[in-house]
Amino acid sequence: MAINKFEVGERIVVKIKDKSYEGVVMPSPLKAKDYLIIKLNSGYNLGIKLSPEVRIEKIGMATKPKAQEIKPPINPKLPKISIIATGGTITSKVEYTTGAVEPLINPEELLLATPELLDVVNISQILSPFSIFSEDMTWVEWQKIAELVAKELNKKDISGVLVTHGTDTLHYTSAALSFMLKNLGKPVALVGGQRSSDRGSFDGAQNLICAGHYLKSNLAEVAIVMHATTNDDFCYAIRGTNVRKMHTSRRDTFRPINELPLAKISPSGEFEILNKNYKSRSEGEVLADTKFEPNVALLKYFPGASPDILNFFVEKKYKGIIIEATGLGHVSTNPKQPRNWLGAIKKAIDEGLFIGFVPQCIYGRLDPYVYSTGRILLDAGVTYLGSMLAETALVKLGWVLGHTKKLEEAKSMMLTNIAGELIDKISPNSFLY
Amino acid sequence: MAINKFEVGERIVVKIKDKSYEGVVMPSPLKAKDYLIIKLNSGYNLGIKLSPEVRIEKIGMATKPKAQEIKPPINPKLPKISIIATGGTITSKVEYTTGAVEPLINPEELLLATPELLDVVNISQILSPFSIFSEDMTWVEWQKIAELVAKELNKKDISGVLVTHGTDTLHYTSAALSFMLKNLGKPVALVGGQRSSDRGSFDGAQNLICAGHYLKSNLAEVAIVMHATTNDDFCYAIRGTNVRKMHTSRRDTFRPINELPLAKISPSGEFEILNKNYKSRSEGEVLADTKFEPNVALLKYFPGASPDILNFFVEKKYKGIIIEATGLGHVSTNPKQPRNWLGAIKKAIDEGLFIGFVPQCIYGRLDPYVYSTGRILLDAGVTYLGSMLAETALVKLGWVLGHTKKLEEAKSMMLTNIAGELIDKISPNSFLY
Repeated sequence: MAINKFEVGERIVVKIKDKSYEGVVMPSPLKAKDYLIIKLNSGYNLGIKLSPEVRIEKIGMATKPKAQEIKPPINPKLPKISIIATGGTITSKVEYTTGAVEPLINPEELLLATPELLDVVNISQILSPFSIFSEDMTWVEWQKIAELVAKELNKKDISGVLVTHGTDTLHYTSAALSFMLKNLGKPVALVGGQRSSDRGSFDGAQNLICAGHYLKSNLAEVAIVMHATTNDDFCYAIRGTNVRKMHTSRRDTFRPINELPLAKISPSGEFEILNKNYKSRSEGEVLADTKFEPNVALLKYFPGASPDILNFFVEKKYKGIIIEATGLGHVSTNPKQPRNWLGAIKKAIDEGLFIGFVPQCIYGRLDPYVYSTGRILLDAGVTYLGSMLAETALVKLGWVLGHTKKLEEAKSMMLTNIAGELIDKISPNSFLY
Repeated sequence: MAINKFEVGERIVVKIKDKSYEGVVMPSPLKAKDYLIIKLNSGYNLGIKLSPEVRIEKIGMATKPKAQEIKPPINPKLPKISIIATGGTITSKVEYTTGAVEPLINPEELLLATPELLDVVNISQILSPFSIFSEDMTWVEWQKIAELVAKELNKKDISGVLVTHGTDTLHYTSAALSFMLKNLGKPVALVGGQRSSDRGSFDGAQNLICAGHYLKSNLAEVAIVMHATTNDDFCYAIRGTNVRKMHTSRRDTFRPINELPLAKISPSGEFEILNKNYKSRSEGEVLADTKFEPNVALLKYFPGASPDILNFFVEKKYKGIIIEATGLGHVSTNPKQPRNWLGAIKKAIDEGLFIGFVPQCIYGRLDPYVYSTGRILLDAGVTYLGSMLAETALVKLGWVLGHTKKLEEAKSMMLTNIAGELIDKISPNSFLY
């Protein structure tokens, strides 16, 4: 029986020896063309190599679900939030006619998977400006989200805003909102899911409920609220500028870097502050200050890396570059090493580019004063960004250069704390937290 | 009193109110020209802004130490190792005449700081092919080290080889030796220090002693042997292909990624195997197989990143690129997004470049089958490298392309396990270990 005998979307039963598997035929990537891939009822995929031992029975076609109209009820005792749904796994489910993970037809369907959220907060409305994978996000989407968040937050009866988003670049967006939302006086929670809403292991439900509690709290901070452990026990709310996706698939993938999470939150509403350094709720208008310079780049230094890459960015009229430097903040400056970066860095700075260093190590702080390499680079005009995360530094640089093109002013803004991204004292307990 | 009144190398006492600090004047970087920087006797630097409250007394000049001739004694009961000293903090001390951290005049001086190593092993000799900061290392140095290690290991009476090295890029070198040392039948330990040998908190001593124990063991693996915790209690030996510098300054900076450390080793010689997946000692000649293609690069994808960077590497005749992709292995492929990477990736592959994806998350494994983005990129010819570390993948790619320029053969080698870099089953307990 050849693989091309089966149509995508067909429901089949596969029998191999004494085992049998029911599922829906999925599209096979070209590279796996000898395998029939089926989506099992459990949500997992199975690849089957056809052989005389494998027997297959067709039992029909998968049916495409209809869009469902959902009107959330209102509980007068609960505060009101707005939801901005931007796409990603949390608002996706497996589309059984194609086998792919696809967006919910209606973002309101999210509430079908998480009715408990309505016991925590009222949903004023669910806005969906677009629905894209988070790897497709750019500064343009960050600007749109920031503007919508500000608009919702400025409504008197709104306690906070929840943004649902793919997890791949959620920490870049959380940094962007941290800088773009000026005079923030209410909480903003970013939530993603590592499993789609039709899976038994859907993590989005707990994340949404914990985010609901966060939005009722006194913390006027942009935070990612997601699983703290692989159990469904509690979430962390982690400051948007000091958080990173650290695992490709675990539900507790988002980790705080260099400081403790802001809070530990259980779905039942227990709320423990772990980090007292936070902004409280305040009055006043939130401003979406979204100007952004797109020609900024993030580069990782590695042994043998050619400095030509810096010249490329100079020629392309880039305005600034963040470099993930080794150790305490080094790249090769040794004149005996043909690929040393000192000349190219000096040239880029002479041409007016901002060159900022961040730790390739991820954890810890740079210090240019310990070794001669650091002192040479500092004298060449490199800006050392302390313990700032590479992702946060990139986003901040685009935002800063959206506000000034003067190099000295940009330097000074990069070294001024705006949204908790410059940490005075690194918590020793936050390493690998 | 002006700062230029003081000469570098002068020993002074600074009195501020009722406190007094003794130290040696260090060179001040241009950016800190208003500060007098002194190296305290503790090894720490202090920056002092001159004011009428600050009083300074000159008490002499620091003296430059002489090179010391050291002939390690031989204990006939202990096995013999060779040491290859390449530079870095572990073989450095603060040079009190200039204030900078500088290489030991004689690599043998290392033994002055760590006489206990001689209770564990005999030192056959200390070779020092060069003495450079590890940020200055390239494939050329990796090749030299691999050749020296192989030569020493092939001596009948040598139990193993210890390589001392700066920590900044130690994990790149450990990966390089893992691939270059073919038919490895004895242990190789890479050791660095986060504090120089004149500091009270010198970590190199414990690291060297634990490495001595490692080189007597049955594990014929290239491993980084360094502090497991911030206490001076024990070390981990971590496989050279699955290890990363994760903190800029902590002594327990090297962490295993996606698998447990090979062993836990205490300075007193307690030795516990934590990971049973290791190669045992074996007979036969070790071969330094060091061919390497230098035109390979490591790129990190970020939201809004321009695909032009790939075209740059194509034009520069690069042979392969490792991309740190988001989540399960994604970059933007959305045709509506002007900076999507699909076209540039296809073009690079058409031109014969190897394009391999690794996790930007660091921990976990890629899976191109879950989302349509992954399937599209797989069909475009991207090679998904599972859970391989970016640093290891870059080094492996240079090594593989040093052996073949055929794209299909390179792909197949990249997906064949050579030195434990392809992990069958990720240990759930290894996350943030």
